[in-house]
Amino acid sequence: MPLRIITISRQYGSAGRQIGRAVAEQLGIGYYDKELLQLLARQSGYTADFIAHSGEYSPASALDYAPLTAQMSGGEMYIPPTDLLVEDQNELILSIAEKESCVIVGRAADFLLRRRSDVLHIFVYGDEESRITRLMERGAVSDAAQAKHVIQDHDRNRKRHYRHYTGREWGEAANYHMMLNTSMLSPELCVDLIVKTFISVP
Amino acid sequence: MPLRIITISRQYGSAGRQIGRAVAEQLGIGYYDKELLQLLARQSGYTADFIAHSGEYSPASALDYAPLTAQMSGGEMYIPPTDLLVEDQNELILSIAEKESCVIVGRAADFLLRRRSDVLHIFVYGDEESRITRLMERGAVSDAAQAKHVIQDHDRNRKRHYRHYTGREWGEAANYHMMLNTSMLSPELCVDLIVKTFISVP
Repeated sequence: MPLRIITISRQYGSAGRQIGRAVAEQLGIGYYDKELLQLLARQSGYTADFIAHSGEYSPASALDYAPLTAQMSGGEMYIPPTDLLVEDQNELILSIAEKESCVIVGRAADFLLRRRSDVLHIFVYGDEESRITRLMERGAVSDAAQAKHVIQDHDRNRKRHYRHYTGREWGEAANYHMMLNTSMLSPELCVDLIVKTFISVP
Repeated sequence: MPLRIITISRQYGSAGRQIGRAVAEQLGIGYYDKELLQLLARQSGYTADFIAHSGEYSPASALDYAPLTAQMSGGEMYIPPTDLLVEDQNELILSIAEKESCVIVGRAADFLLRRRSDVLHIFVYGDEESRITRLMERGAVSDAAQAKHVIQDHDRNRKRHYRHYTGREWGEAANYHMMLNTSMLSPELCVDLIVKTFISVP
């Protein structure tokens, strides 16, 4: 079965989101990440009606949802989700996956879509040093000490969130088809490898 | 720094050895695996002299060492190494890595060469089902039950061996640059991805 969907799980500061966005653009398919999905789920007012029609929200490129993302406070900051919101997001992801080919970054989408055979599950990670460097280049932090703190904080939260909602271990190889370490591999190379894989699997 | 060496660690039955051999052939570089390294280390009589000259043993393709491999009893079967043999193999691997560009499969080579920046570390794995299927297709086992037993046995031994000699956890993402799941990705695709990565890293 040809692949239709890519999930990307990633350590904070590993460029996973940047990679996911570029993959979606190159393949010309939808792109969904935490910020967009949280916003869509909130805007829906948690109604089943919105979820049924969520296929309408299918941005073809990252730019399409920039105005939405801008409404969010905190940018990429971690927002502890409520169970209700998570449940709603999960239904939203399942509904999107039914309707279109897309890239989904984060949100334990790998777990949600684990039984489908047309989904490629990617994990993007890196050593702490390279992630600190990336955050500082991005201007997201004031110094290395803050970068380190933010990275450890995010990783701990993602790990905890993933374990709580899935019963599995975040970052464990068995849950993914390809794991890419951006300490060694450039984001551009990772995009190429993922795109190549997506179009190669028969 | 351009990459010179590839280490491939792999779960039993995941096609890691087949992938490693094909990568070496495509790149036209040396290929070393457990059987060859054990044999070379044994033939050396554990003398420093052999190790100093081990660069002479640089098979350009898998076929070159087929006669050597044939002398081994047990084929791919796990042979519990003695500490002495392991130490000798380690020196052999370090010596080979000094002298030539190559692919090294198994033998905790990723740990041995962890401080070098010109080494690409790959982990090849797969779910139990796909590995059982592969072993049966290869005619290495009589039935699925035996395949399962052999796989679990090998994995346990590799895990234990790796932990004992390295103090690290086998299969943990932080130890590798790329992890490929052959339950989803064909060995041919994996070869392409590794070759592309090897020649792309500046």
